[in-house]
Amino acid sequence: MEIAPGALLQTINSPADIKKLDRLQLHQLCDELRQYIIDVVSVHGGHFAASLGVVELTVALHYIYNTPYDQLVWDVGHQAYGHKVLTGRRENFISNRKYKGISGFPKRSESEYDTFGVGHSSTSISAALGIAMAAKYKKENRKSVAIIGDGAMTAGMAFEGLNHAGVADADMLVVLNDNGIGIDPNVGALKEYLTDITTSQTYNKLRDDVWNLLGKLPVGKRFTRDMASKLETGIKGLISKRSNLFESLNFRYFGPIDGHNITKLVDTLYDLKNIPGPKLLHIITTKGKGYALAEKDQTKWHAPGLFDKVTGEIYKKVYDTPQPPKYQDVFGKTIIELAEKNPLIMGITPAMPSGSSLKFMMEAMPNRAFDVGICEQHAVTLSAGLATQGMKVFCNVYSSFMQRAYDQAVHDVAIQKLPVIFCLDRAGLVGEDGPTHHGAYDIAYFRCIPNMIISAPMNEQELRNLMYTAQLEETKLPFVIRYPRGEGVMQNWQTPFEKLEIGKGRKLKDGNDVAVLTIGHPGNFATVAIRQLRTEGIDAAHYDLRFIKPIDEALLHEVFAKHSKIITVEDGTIIGGFGAAVLEFMAKYNYTAEVKTLGIPDRIVEHGTLKELHAECGYDANGIAATARAMMQDSVRVKVELLG
Amino acid sequence: MEIAPGALLQTINSPADIKKLDRLQLHQLCDELRQYIIDVVSVHGGHFAASLGVVELTVALHYIYNTPYDQLVWDVGHQAYGHKVLTGRRENFISNRKYKGISGFPKRSESEYDTFGVGHSSTSISAALGIAMAAKYKKENRKSVAIIGDGAMTAGMAFEGLNHAGVADADMLVVLNDNGIGIDPNVGALKEYLTDITTSQTYNKLRDDVWNLLGKLPVGKRFTRDMASKLETGIKGLISKRSNLFESLNFRYFGPIDGHNITKLVDTLYDLKNIPGPKLLHIITTKGKGYALAEKDQTKWHAPGLFDKVTGEIYKKVYDTPQPPKYQDVFGKTIIELAEKNPLIMGITPAMPSGSSLKFMMEAMPNRAFDVGICEQHAVTLSAGLATQGMKVFCNVYSSFMQRAYDQAVHDVAIQKLPVIFCLDRAGLVGEDGPTHHGAYDIAYFRCIPNMIISAPMNEQELRNLMYTAQLEETKLPFVIRYPRGEGVMQNWQTPFEKLEIGKGRKLKDGNDVAVLTIGHPGNFATVAIRQLRTEGIDAAHYDLRFIKPIDEALLHEVFAKHSKIITVEDGTIIGGFGAAVLEFMAKYNYTAEVKTLGIPDRIVEHGTLKELHAECGYDANGIAATARAMMQDSVRVKVELLG
Repeated sequence: MEIAPGALLQTINSPADIKKLDRLQLHQLCDELRQYIIDVVSVHGGHFAASLGVVELTVALHYIYNTPYDQLVWDVGHQAYGHKVLTGRRENFISNRKYKGISGFPKRSESEYDTFGVGHSSTSISAALGIAMAAKYKKENRKSVAIIGDGAMTAGMAFEGLNHAGVADADMLVVLNDNGIGIDPNVGALKEYLTDITTSQTYNKLRDDVWNLLGKLPVGKRFTRDMASKLETGIKGLISKRSNLFESLNFRYFGPIDGHNITKLVDTLYDLKNIPGPKLLHIITTKGKGYALAEKDQTKWHAPGLFDKVTGEIYKKVYDTPQPPKYQDVFGKTIIELAEKNPLIMGITPAMPSGSSLKFMMEAMPNRAFDVGICEQHAVTLSAGLATQGMKVFCNVYSSFMQRAYDQAVHDVAIQKLPVIFCLDRAGLVGEDGPTHHGAYDIAYFRCIPNMIISAPMNEQELRNLMYTAQLEETKLPFVIRYPRGEGVMQNWQTPFEKLEIGKGRKLKDGNDVAVLTIGHPGNFATVAIRQLRTEGIDAAHYDLRFIKPIDEALLHEVFAKHSKIITVEDGTIIGGFGAAVLEFMAKYNYTAEVKTLGIPDRIVEHGTLKELHAECGYDANGIAATARAMMQDSVRVKVELLG
Repeated sequence: MEIAPGALLQTINSPADIKKLDRLQLHQLCDELRQYIIDVVSVHGGHFAASLGVVELTVALHYIYNTPYDQLVWDVGHQAYGHKVLTGRRENFISNRKYKGISGFPKRSESEYDTFGVGHSSTSISAALGIAMAAKYKKENRKSVAIIGDGAMTAGMAFEGLNHAGVADADMLVVLNDNGIGIDPNVGALKEYLTDITTSQTYNKLRDDVWNLLGKLPVGKRFTRDMASKLETGIKGLISKRSNLFESLNFRYFGPIDGHNITKLVDTLYDLKNIPGPKLLHIITTKGKGYALAEKDQTKWHAPGLFDKVTGEIYKKVYDTPQPPKYQDVFGKTIIELAEKNPLIMGITPAMPSGSSLKFMMEAMPNRAFDVGICEQHAVTLSAGLATQGMKVFCNVYSSFMQRAYDQAVHDVAIQKLPVIFCLDRAGLVGEDGPTHHGAYDIAYFRCIPNMIISAPMNEQELRNLMYTAQLEETKLPFVIRYPRGEGVMQNWQTPFEKLEIGKGRKLKDGNDVAVLTIGHPGNFATVAIRQLRTEGIDAAHYDLRFIKPIDEALLHEVFAKHSKIITVEDGTIIGGFGAAVLEFMAKYNYTAEVKTLGIPDRIVEHGTLKELHAECGYDANGIAATARAMMQDSVRVKVELLG
């Protein structure tokens, strides 16, 4: 289906075209850009509400700044669809998040307008400061702007960036896009503070005085450096010294202003552009702006999938038979079942109550399940602190976000042997979100840490039993349970709890040829592959190891004693992962075997559907079968050679 | 040599004994505690100035709080010597930081008074909040106190903790120990802010009014909840709403007060103890307090080594011959040499200018080398931002602290292929600082990341050549250079620069028996071992791989073609490390060989001298020789069996 951009938007091939427009046309451009995002995302999918909220900001920034010479750094990047459409990717936008299509996030290799690749939150201030410091050193008059949401501002990294920028004497602007929501509603003291300064009458009165004063200056000359410094004194006089949190950190604070008023935005950015030093502009926006349903339920419309843009009906796939649940929902419902029996259980999520499904417990047991905001580091050490008091904490963090709390997992949990339970959702490839979100590394980065139990369930029942085992009083060590994005395989998944022996795997199928050793969900791919191989006369064995660490040495002895051809399969990096653990076992006991390790290869895997990516990486059912086939053929070839 | 504690200190076997003292005796106890720390540290070594700075605070906290029921969390822990002495470890204190002795940091397994193990900075607020939330949930009237320096407060994690604590409705006190210095002087906007509020006349005037008001209340009843709330209103009236940074985050702010006035500290803590909710007490202290030389040069006296407490002379070992330089100094001097030729080079350190020796460049080229404070995350992404502008950034971070910026290294550097140069100082075991500081994991946690070049120099010349190679324009990828704490092996180390081929190792010695494959400094242990083995008739080959990634496959083919017995040696975890890379190579090409992997075993290695720890882990020269010997004997045994 052809999606036609509006008449004006059709003429915008780069920001240079925006600069030719007059104020009225800017309004039109905003309307058309918003409509185009609605048109494309409703049909092609992707993140939705965030980009609608910054349409005016996006247009204003490219109107005022000399991009790409001046550099915009979009934090997280969910909200940069408008930016992409305006910077030469209007037609390509329909390939957004599709295999081989453009990325759902700004990406340096995609466009010179994408100054810094993003995906994880709160990196923009540091990156923009780096850009500003380089400009200063090179004596270039380049401007650098970080655009960051109030949710992302709660992560410590943003504070670190502000703390340095405040003394770095570099020329940068931070635009604080305050909409009170990230994916889920923002939480924390900072959010309350921002609400306070936004609603405080006195504060706004003072701000208005200042803005009126600015308005009276002759256009075009508004902010010379001299005048800026005079105004600065005026502002300081009006408001008590460093009364504002950002001013405490040496930023000049401006705002709050209405982020949907394009005229005000353009005027303000124009004024701010030539004020030297670190500045923060606080704008108030509505996530989902311009699409009423999205404005009303912003979490639902963060990334709604395909929908009818007229009725607002979100399409759901219809199946003939009931489908298995998502792993996240198995977690979300199971933790409640466990917590009802064990009063020591608590749940922690850093800003992913919906994505982790911890929201069920937050609703059912609000004094025992907490969304702590975007702050993985704090989430992990808080969990460790709770664990010192005997609490059994399920700390649910996406695998790729756990990278943010790696030190805390090592230093505060593992070294102290505190029995925190890490549920790593989105472990393995995640699909359309791409490289920044693939949970590729957790097996390797946790396996080297002493005292860690690392497990992965092959299905819903296994996940439940691992969760049950992890919270038992006798389980005295940190316990990682990694599971993938998306659905499991069982329809009747609410099976009774069963304690699993830690470090114990299981044989799923005997076989006389190659042995397939799997961990986690890809075990299901192996099941399919083995069924196929059987039809070809290859009799493969299947072992599900369940635990990467401690690994089941007894089971591996059984495997290596019987098999000389072994395939390992995992949804993680081949380097240092589960396969490497098998190789380390082999070296330790001096076994000889041909071992092929399947998993995520040593390169950045881009975005696409899970199916496409698993196939590309060669560990879907076809990939496993092909590997087994090749190993068996080699073996036949060797035999023939020996006989010949 | 016997070191006698003072007469009063001798009677203090636990905090209960402190509680029996009157005010005058508290003064005496402080004096004696300070003297005892001076006496012991001057003779036995350790961190010095930090603990002197909190003598009064330590005594006051244990006097007012009901430890260990109430829980104190010391941030970093350098400053907790007084706490250790007062909590049953007075006599043991002479074993501080020694092999099998007590730890230089609070450690849960050592004492019930050590509520949370520390070493890395800025974890205390999160941990103390966890303790407070558990108390609230369990309805226990337990108090929880975090004691954190102004330097540690700049790390984002501290902000994350404050942001959550401000809304968590849990009862906790943060004591901000403001001395303007961590190991090196504190930097950043927050530091300036704290100086501002400490010196501002108006601000202090208001504070004094409040404190005077408090002083007039009858002793013993000072802070009932009602009164606290009334006073709160009073305070809010005096000072504009949330005018203070900490108040912005919903903390009640008290101070600043003199942290060396034991009477005021005791009174203040007494008052604060029963105020509910999140509170921050800002105290001003002098690091090194009571030892004049340490007060004057706090960086030098952070951990001075042994010294004459009377003259202040710091002892240095005297050698007959010139000694090799520390690796850190080779880095510190080489970066200047390179920067003089390459104007694109910059240097970044997060709060370790002395420890990394980047201070040389900061002095010589202040516009190109920066201490950004304790904020590894920001340091790495700032470096990435600079790299987007063509800068060649040497980002120097201790290996164990790089764990804090793991996500940034993956997400901002590796995925984007930005050629940031990570110099990981203190890689491998670090000795007396122990488990929190061992740089054990970096090979494993970086090896699984695509696009990363990972190298380790065997000596000074190699470090120089790796640094030279890393900054070349043609080197287009992130480049890790890991090197250990302490001295190298070359006296004449300022050799001419030579470009190394990336991914190319070298054969140091041919041999016909076992092959020893090493990476980095432990190559020198292998050299000694091989010399010894030769005298026993074992002819070992020695290969220095130089690069862990990409690994030299051509060289490994040579090794595996010739040798059936191979030993790998590294100063990092055996799991997932360099040895694992060799095993992965072996599996990939289906070689058969007996491979023994030496390195850091899969358990927490405690503190001790490097020599003791290398021996314990079995990869010093003796350990390597013993392994080779055992492999050769096994081989003889097998031959004998075959012949028999």
